[in-house]
Amino acid sequence: MKRKALHLTLIGLFLVIGYFESNAQSFNRAIKTVENFEPSIPHPEQDKDITQKLAELEKKTGKKPNIVWIIIDDLGYGEPGAYGGGAAIGAATPAMDKLAAEGLKLTSCYSQQTCTPTRSAILTGRLPVRTGLTRPILAGDKITKNPWADEVSLPKLLSDNGYYTLLTGKWHVGEAEGMRPHDVGFDEYYGYYPAQKEITQGIDPRRFPDLVLNEELIKAFETIRPANHLTHGFKDGTTNELEEIKSLGDMGRADHKLADFTISKIKELSGSDKPFFIEHCFMKVHADNFDNPDYPGLSAAKYPYKNAVVEVDMHIGRILKALEEAGELENTFVFVTSDNGPQMDAWPDGGYTPFRGAKGTTFEGGVRVPGIAYWKGMISPGRASDDVFDLMDLFGTSLRLAGISQDELPDDRYYDFIDQSSFLFHDNGKGNRESVYFWWGTELMGIRMREYKEHIKVIIPQAPHMWIDYATIQDVGLAPWLFNLYIDPKEEMPVGHRRNAWLASLGAQLKSHAATFKKYPPKNIGL
Amino acid sequence: MKRKALHLTLIGLFLVIGYFESNAQSFNRAIKTVENFEPSIPHPEQDKDITQKLAELEKKTGKKPNIVWIIIDDLGYGEPGAYGGGAAIGAATPAMDKLAAEGLKLTSCYSQQTCTPTRSAILTGRLPVRTGLTRPILAGDKITKNPWADEVSLPKLLSDNGYYTLLTGKWHVGEAEGMRPHDVGFDEYYGYYPAQKEITQGIDPRRFPDLVLNEELIKAFETIRPANHLTHGFKDGTTNELEEIKSLGDMGRADHKLADFTISKIKELSGSDKPFFIEHCFMKVHADNFDNPDYPGLSAAKYPYKNAVVEVDMHIGRILKALEEAGELENTFVFVTSDNGPQMDAWPDGGYTPFRGAKGTTFEGGVRVPGIAYWKGMISPGRASDDVFDLMDLFGTSLRLAGISQDELPDDRYYDFIDQSSFLFHDNGKGNRESVYFWWGTELMGIRMREYKEHIKVIIPQAPHMWIDYATIQDVGLAPWLFNLYIDPKEEMPVGHRRNAWLASLGAQLKSHAATFKKYPPKNIGL
Repeated sequence: MKRKALHLTLIGLFLVIGYFESNAQSFNRAIKTVENFEPSIPHPEQDKDITQKLAELEKKTGKKPNIVWIIIDDLGYGEPGAYGGGAAIGAATPAMDKLAAEGLKLTSCYSQQTCTPTRSAILTGRLPVRTGLTRPILAGDKITKNPWADEVSLPKLLSDNGYYTLLTGKWHVGEAEGMRPHDVGFDEYYGYYPAQKEITQGIDPRRFPDLVLNEELIKAFETIRPANHLTHGFKDGTTNELEEIKSLGDMGRADHKLADFTISKIKELSGSDKPFFIEHCFMKVHADNFDNPDYPGLSAAKYPYKNAVVEVDMHIGRILKALEEAGELENTFVFVTSDNGPQMDAWPDGGYTPFRGAKGTTFEGGVRVPGIAYWKGMISPGRASDDVFDLMDLFGTSLRLAGISQDELPDDRYYDFIDQSSFLFHDNGKGNRESVYFWWGTELMGIRMREYKEHIKVIIPQAPHMWIDYATIQDVGLAPWLFNLYIDPKEEMPVGHRRNAWLASLGAQLKSHAATFKKYPPKNIGL
Repeated sequence: MKRKALHLTLIGLFLVIGYFESNAQSFNRAIKTVENFEPSIPHPEQDKDITQKLAELEKKTGKKPNIVWIIIDDLGYGEPGAYGGGAAIGAATPAMDKLAAEGLKLTSCYSQQTCTPTRSAILTGRLPVRTGLTRPILAGDKITKNPWADEVSLPKLLSDNGYYTLLTGKWHVGEAEGMRPHDVGFDEYYGYYPAQKEITQGIDPRRFPDLVLNEELIKAFETIRPANHLTHGFKDGTTNELEEIKSLGDMGRADHKLADFTISKIKELSGSDKPFFIEHCFMKVHADNFDNPDYPGLSAAKYPYKNAVVEVDMHIGRILKALEEAGELENTFVFVTSDNGPQMDAWPDGGYTPFRGAKGTTFEGGVRVPGIAYWKGMISPGRASDDVFDLMDLFGTSLRLAGISQDELPDDRYYDFIDQSSFLFHDNGKGNRESVYFWWGTELMGIRMREYKEHIKVIIPQAPHMWIDYATIQDVGLAPWLFNLYIDPKEEMPVGHRRNAWLASLGAQLKSHAATFKKYPPKNIGL
């Protein structure tokens, strides 16, 4: 989308919102303290406690805590047993269930609605519409401006402040020089740049015969295909291309190899004075899934997606075991999540969400994801919370853990993250975030505050399950669609026209959100 | 429905099924051993272990175990936290979650699709279509034949075999003499005959002004209204009419009073040589729900349905505490469930199911219910199983616990229950049931075997959420609708026409089920 078009969208937005903002009484508890930072709900007492708790741990260990993020690709909210799925839908997830039971299970944890937007947002603490990374980068895309060039990434900040930073697995936020993980702040990268199907589309004659079996087309494809090899890169620019994915069996084996690598690095990095930040990004369970030939048919359901869920869970168990054996469990904040809802267009190679919608939409099915925070000794077992958490909050929370002040960030841009340390690590922690905003590309779609969600635009599939390939973005009708997610988790019964106080409050909040783009204009990178 | 119509339905059924049965290869593992009993999957080893385990307990306690069923009215599958809801949807359920965590959580537990059918089926071990109790009994219904007259009820069997049998709370299986709980086998009854809305429709001017504020109509209504008083009845026929529900506040207080009664009876009955069977049936969370005025607004969501969920959960905690304090926890099999899915026609006074459909349908939303089996020392904590369980299996399981042989049942009729003791009480117990059949009144709608479910008729709402008041029963099209509930829990993507082996196997099973009605004709009670 061109900047002009974005500008027009924002003007339209002001009109829509203005209509509902007259005489607004706001239910908003968040306070803005710095102009270019997202306002947060103040909890001074729990915040003080956490400062002390973190200081005590550091005194004991003599270093800052490690941070391990585990990102599963396209896992549905309903897939883990702890979220209502697991064995009940044919794919047991004992490792994730154990982490949820012994940690904090977040039930209102939000991603962006697709992959690249989420993955870039958590590393920059900024919405995709601000960085320009508004949709998945696909084979053949020509990006006119490197979005990373002027972003300050979390791994860069951590690396500059004494952490060893590693990304293992899927990247999918740019393959060109300057956009690779080891270009943007990671000390080391070991993984595959694109999503699984970007690789397998070139080698799977059963699903893509029109490409793979057509000699002319496959040659043309080779000129634009994403990298299909394992890449081992380093901060100094060294980039080694390792084995290619040559068969579907190779693809099926990728996650085992990646987990082995993370495990070996945990062994190597543990016990040193230097804390580590590892972002482990599984290739699975993104379509197209192929069994690891060394252990096919892992799940009760037997379908590749389900087998992939069980495999990923197994590797999570292995990674946690490695942390334990390395003696780092009590000094490591672990967070397990998905980058967006399940992709249902690829069904049955897609997962389960109990909600409306799927990946590619701003209904709950697209953006509400499992979020499991685990930290032995720092997060009390058995906690669960429905307070909202945006995956971008991992950015602010990580800064706090590393002792990096938000003042160190450049003040020429807007930051959307919230520091949620006091929520996550306090025994009775309350969430510090008031609002989650939903964007689709450069379209502002809606907002959640407390249990209410308002849509000003919606994505409607034109056939069952076709939420990406055959859907349209539509304006809402007379009133924004307002849902109460407690009594209507499936977003079926709008109550907007009888809820003017909510329309006014949420509308005012949307307007104030939109105003941040006037003062801090978004980037356009040609996507 | 007249008998002739039922006969025609069955003939139609044979035609439908016959089409798919040619060259059937059956995936059915169940074995029929007695002609008039439902076949079951043999597990001789686990069965032997359970016989021994039960004998050892009896040796220790000197009596048979107590049995406590806790039935919540219209609770959605997704409401308890252990099933994905709880605080995440504004109504925390710590007591149920604890029982699920420390017991066996069943994730494929099935009820009938409405109240009276389920409540009668669990007490007779027979499908509603066999007993004639095919739909909820409503004010003004004239029943031409007492269905209980020739049924052998579980409480009667237990009472005859040394148990004290009590039903507390909602009955809803007949108010006429001969059909009351204390007429059909319960030694004692303390509760209200009908559902909450049957009572409150006569006193709630806000929801039913056209009745309550119309002097002429309300007089006419008084002649057909269901009983609105608390009834205390005894096996010898004594029936005391206690206080009437005169206000919505009285209605809101009913469940506290009922729980108090059950708790006092537990104290009274414990420690004796006589085991007890208590069926505690909550009035809540059936529409219309009213807060207990002594503790309004219990839930985070604040809506009456959600407050009712929290209240019911609180009483479950109180009842369990009473069992513990009475020293009976290790000698009591507790089962918590709902009589059907949430009633969405009454929304927002209706609950949450992640599945398709709601109360009144044979989609999963109507018939899949929470099923929590808890027995300290006999059921290992942390168990969960997706093996199918039909609430009628509580009948067979209870017989086993009481040491009553199935041979004692009259052999002139068909029994649909399965003894699931070895499944529930063995540490590694596998389910003994192969098939669950879905009926709507006298219409056979479908079947589940393993993770597959086949619909031969379906209920389709004509407006969102209107699954009872504005829905139609429709024949399926070219092929039965076949869903794989593991990869498609929401029953959205039929795969029947590509799954002939399944159509054949399930079809053969439906045919053999239908054949039982030829040999053992169903009753017609004029409903």
